[in-house]
Amino acid sequence: MASRYLSFRCSLPWLLLLLQTLLLLRSFLGFLGVGDTYSPSSFYPEFQDVSHMVIFGFGFFLMVLRRYGFSSTGFNFLLVVLGVQCSVLVEDFLFSFCFSFLPCSLAKAVVSMAAVVISTGAVLGKANPMQLIVMTLVELIIFYVSRCINRKFLQVPEKLTLMHVHLFGAYFGLALTSRFPGPPPGLDKSRSTPKSDLFSVLGTVFVWVFWPSFNSILADSKREPVLNTYLALAVSAVAAFMLSALTSKDGKFRMAQLRSALLAGGVTVSHTAQRIQHPWIAMILGLLGTAINILGSHCLQRCFNRALKLQDTSGIHFTFGLPAVLGAVAAIVVRAVKCGIETQWNDLSRLGYLIFIDVGAFCQTITTALITGLITGLILNIKLLKAVHVSKYFDDQFYWEVSFKIIPF
Amino acid sequence: MASRYLSFRCSLPWLLLLLQTLLLLRSFLGFLGVGDTYSPSSFYPEFQDVSHMVIFGFGFFLMVLRRYGFSSTGFNFLLVVLGVQCSVLVEDFLFSFCFSFLPCSLAKAVVSMAAVVISTGAVLGKANPMQLIVMTLVELIIFYVSRCINRKFLQVPEKLTLMHVHLFGAYFGLALTSRFPGPPPGLDKSRSTPKSDLFSVLGTVFVWVFWPSFNSILADSKREPVLNTYLALAVSAVAAFMLSALTSKDGKFRMAQLRSALLAGGVTVSHTAQRIQHPWIAMILGLLGTAINILGSHCLQRCFNRALKLQDTSGIHFTFGLPAVLGAVAAIVVRAVKCGIETQWNDLSRLGYLIFIDVGAFCQTITTALITGLITGLILNIKLLKAVHVSKYFDDQFYWEVSFKIIPF
Amino acid sequence: MASRYLSFRCSLPWLLLLLQTLLLLRSFLGFLGVGDTYSPSSFYPEFQDVSHMVIFGFGFFLMVLRRYGFSSTGFNFLLVVLGVQCSVLVEDFLFSFCFSFLPCSLAKAVVSMAAVVISTGAVLGKANPMQLIVMTLVELIIFYVSRCINRKFLQVPEKLTLMHVHLFGAYFGLALTSRFPGPPPGLDKSRSTPKSDLFSVLGTVFVWVFWPSFNSILADSKREPVLNTYLALAVSAVAAFMLSALTSKDGKFRMAQLRSALLAGGVTVSHTAQRIQHPWIAMILGLLGTAINILGSHCLQRCFNRALKLQDTSGIHFTFGLPAVLGAVAAIVVRAVKCGIETQWNDLSRLGYLIFIDVGAFCQTITTALITGLITGLILNIKLLKAVHVSKYFDDQFYWEVSFKIIPF
Repeated sequence: MASRYLSFRCSLPWLLLLLQTLLLLRSFLGFLGVGDTYSPSSFYPEFQDVSHMVIFGFGFFLMVLRRYGFSSTGFNFLLVVLGVQCSVLVEDFLFSFCFSFLPCSLAKAVVSMAAVVISTGAVLGKANPMQLIVMTLVELIIFYVSRCINRKFLQVPEKLTLMHVHLFGAYFGLALTSRFPGPPPGLDKSRSTPKSDLFSVLGTVFVWVFWPSFNSILADSKREPVLNTYLALAVSAVAAFMLSALTSKDGKFRMAQLRSALLAGGVTVSHTAQRIQHPWIAMILGLLGTAINILGSHCLQRCFNRALKLQDTSGIHFTFGLPAVLGAVAAIVVRAVKCGIETQWNDLSRLGYLIFIDVGAFCQTITTALITGLITGLILNIKLLKAVHVSKYFDDQFYWEVSFKIIPF
Repeated sequence: MASRYLSFRCSLPWLLLLLQTLLLLRSFLGFLGVGDTYSPSSFYPEFQDVSHMVIFGFGFFLMVLRRYGFSSTGFNFLLVVLGVQCSVLVEDFLFSFCFSFLPCSLAKAVVSMAAVVISTGAVLGKANPMQLIVMTLVELIIFYVSRCINRKFLQVPEKLTLMHVHLFGAYFGLALTSRFPGPPPGLDKSRSTPKSDLFSVLGTVFVWVFWPSFNSILADSKREPVLNTYLALAVSAVAAFMLSALTSKDGKFRMAQLRSALLAGGVTVSHTAQRIQHPWIAMILGLLGTAINILGSHCLQRCFNRALKLQDTSGIHFTFGLPAVLGAVAAIVVRAVKCGIETQWNDLSRLGYLIFIDVGAFCQTITTALITGLITGLILNIKLLKAVHVSKYFDDQFYWEVSFKIIPF
Repeated sequence: MASRYLSFRCSLPWLLLLLQTLLLLRSFLGFLGVGDTYSPSSFYPEFQDVSHMVIFGFGFFLMVLRRYGFSSTGFNFLLVVLGVQCSVLVEDFLFSFCFSFLPCSLAKAVVSMAAVVISTGAVLGKANPMQLIVMTLVELIIFYVSRCINRKFLQVPEKLTLMHVHLFGAYFGLALTSRFPGPPPGLDKSRSTPKSDLFSVLGTVFVWVFWPSFNSILADSKREPVLNTYLALAVSAVAAFMLSALTSKDGKFRMAQLRSALLAGGVTVSHTAQRIQHPWIAMILGLLGTAINILGSHCLQRCFNRALKLQDTSGIHFTFGLPAVLGAVAAIVVRAVKCGIETQWNDLSRLGYLIFIDVGAFCQTITTALITGLITGLILNIKLLKAVHVSKYFDDQFYWEVSFKIIPF
């Protein structure tokens, strides 16, 4: 029994205390003033939206497991508040060599937390809080390094480096989850119930509604990103209903599939939202995003995941990974075409250079995510971090004092 | 059995595909730029609020049936995302003859979706998605035509034509639902449960909180509409508690009644919120709105609905219809009095003309809504659209793949 | 039976009617214009946030009792809409002697409602709606008087007098609840369930996310209050997880404890958020707030409450009371140190005077709250207000028509 009911009392609180003390010390010694970490005040409503989206929206979006509701929202909350502090306080300390960066603002910190939240989705119910916290720290640092490389060596504008957040988060999470043993087949707790689905819908709607703020928070002009993101999401939602009915028996809708497909448009358009001048391009991207999401969910779950023994609890590969790849490719094409039209396809060498840079940034991000994800996965399974036994996966009672028996809801 | 378990696989996806393709083509061929469909950026927080209100608020507000939670939120979502695209893209194409209109912005599109959402409430649980989509298209077009008539022939300012949205939506929905056969008496599924009520309260609070944004999104000055709407809603809520306790046995509150009465003030004041200079007028309107709502719900459910064999699932007649009529009448009175005071009641012919115009706009809107609603109701029940059998009303399992038995919650 | 099933039909509606009529009369006779009660329009998004936080956030935050969900949200709603009207309309009428006040704006009215909402938490499930309404009126008036004294005799800036709202609300509520008989031990209805906990988490997240708006709504510059509040809340949340795991058996988290501890940072920092220039001070305050919350909840529940026979249903003493005391003390220290540094500790008499003023304002507020709370508690238990019998505590069925048996959720 002892091995089954691991107590985190002697480890987790002290880890949190250590981290929080370091952050406080950094804040104290850095003589950080308020002005250093705050963006112009006009951004406040968007910041509030994104904060709401990351904490509430994703927290409830992840509530897909019938007995894991407290952990889904609670741990998501813990990781976000810890991660935002790390982003704001540690980044400029660790990486002061990268001079071309502006000091990390609260807004950028919340946006980059999306990577961690997405990765959490992949190991949902399998990783314990200790592992999740270590993952958060490692992932934030590596994501920062990856952005630094893109910024410094590939000259990608800073605002666009942040838009790799979905790509990085998804593939980091996937590589990570491949190092966790899969749950025994037929584990009842990994299913959802209509009630948990309803809470998850609640979160999904929040993520959907606040997505235009997410894509526009760092933009200079709000017009393009808001309109493009809204239209892409709208087309994506229509396509989700269409394909969900088309691919199911009897033409019925599947809530789990819809939930994931609704958001694909927002991911796909995130790279290009600020630059698209014609809404129809954003709409097509939204449509393709959903198509790749639904197609991907079929293929991945049947073949790829089984072959690789991947266990992607909340389906982040097809919800965020594939649409982000599509979005990155689309961004390259859009930029190439735009540049080609501007130069009337005469200056092909410059065009080739541009494409090379963009492809480089994309490959660098995804490779870094996969390799460091794998390594982090190995680190997380060392004995010190008390990995959970597979029979205890997906269970709130392992982490939470529940006053009485949880009725599966 | 075949007749009972209709499959939408061969119809619904293709309808959605057709519509989405048309919308994409329109967007592509129209050479619409971003600037054409975007309002000044200062409106963004209000737009976000209204979007949240229509998608999340109304989606959960409609969750009153115990076994219809997925469909209430899901179909509401589908209709909104489809309808907003239609509004933005099709309107200026179909009706370019009406030159006095500004191009449809995202904000206006979301506001006019409220009409569709309200109509949906009347046929909630009775219409299948095919019927709802056709209804959305027809209703949006007719609402646009009705606004055009008001704008062009009656010289109603454009912003005010949009405020007929509750009136139009409610009576269109009512006329529509009269063409649907009523559910068999004693159908257990048409009741609510404490749990579904709680989700519905959640949505209602969202609608309530965001209503000031709804009434002020198109106004030049935010001061009057925000303050008037807030006060009207507040008085309305107090009156709702008062009348709910007064009209029930034992002085207990009824949640279903409260939910509907809370919102009456916002509907009543929507026409006049921008023009009232003294808050007490808005407060009186809020009070009257709730009074007519609670009185109406008694009379309508006992006599009128039974006589006309109306089956108004979520009570939109007294939630939106009657308060909107009251609001329109109040708007006429307020304008007449204001004009009368200005001219010291000397220029009675001009006063009469003003009243004639306003009454004309009101009668035109309600008549158009009723007649076209009836016709649309007849169209929706053709065989092609696969009307649902009454025994299958109010049931999620008909449209959604539910992983296991739904426990009535 | 008659004594158990008290009917509020002959009392509650008439009380509401009387109040609403008075408010309408006041609005009519006061010739209040829109401009008098509206702040500059740039504040609108923050106002919306605070309104959402008070109505939705606190409403669901209070949903901790398994059979009291309707009442928690419903009565909270009623009190807010009634209280906001009272604040806006009555204040300047009753207290026109206090000339140094600006006319009460909508924003200030919503902020001061937080005091009432917090007090409600203390008597949650024990007070009937009649008692709650009387409490709201009395508390708003006394809070206004207390602010007037601080403003006029102690020269506290008006914006800071409002930040005593948590302190006042908590101790008023505590004094009040001491006059209510405690529930019989072992009353099953006073427990929470995983499902009610989940709804409560939903509300807590809303309160958490919108807290920066609450602390910044009255500030001239948004930078300091937003950043300080966010960081204090973040540290507070991390500390809450840390201490929750540390103080429980097996290192498990307790949701009820977390929910309360998460918010402590926001309360602690509310006095000083506008004046702190170095984020690390806000972070330390957040940490201390959570520490005092968790320590307090242990000590209070075991010794203090039992000795004083206090029954604080939703733990507002340690959620809002203790952190507010800490915050007030911290504000005094911060101001003294700042002033000391400015004058290089030479002008000790002025320093002493400043400290004296601040301590005076703090003592005046808490004493007024305690004494008037006690008196109000005595008034609320007169026969006219029909106090609820202890066996009927914590039960929705006493106030709401529930269509069928409530399954404890």
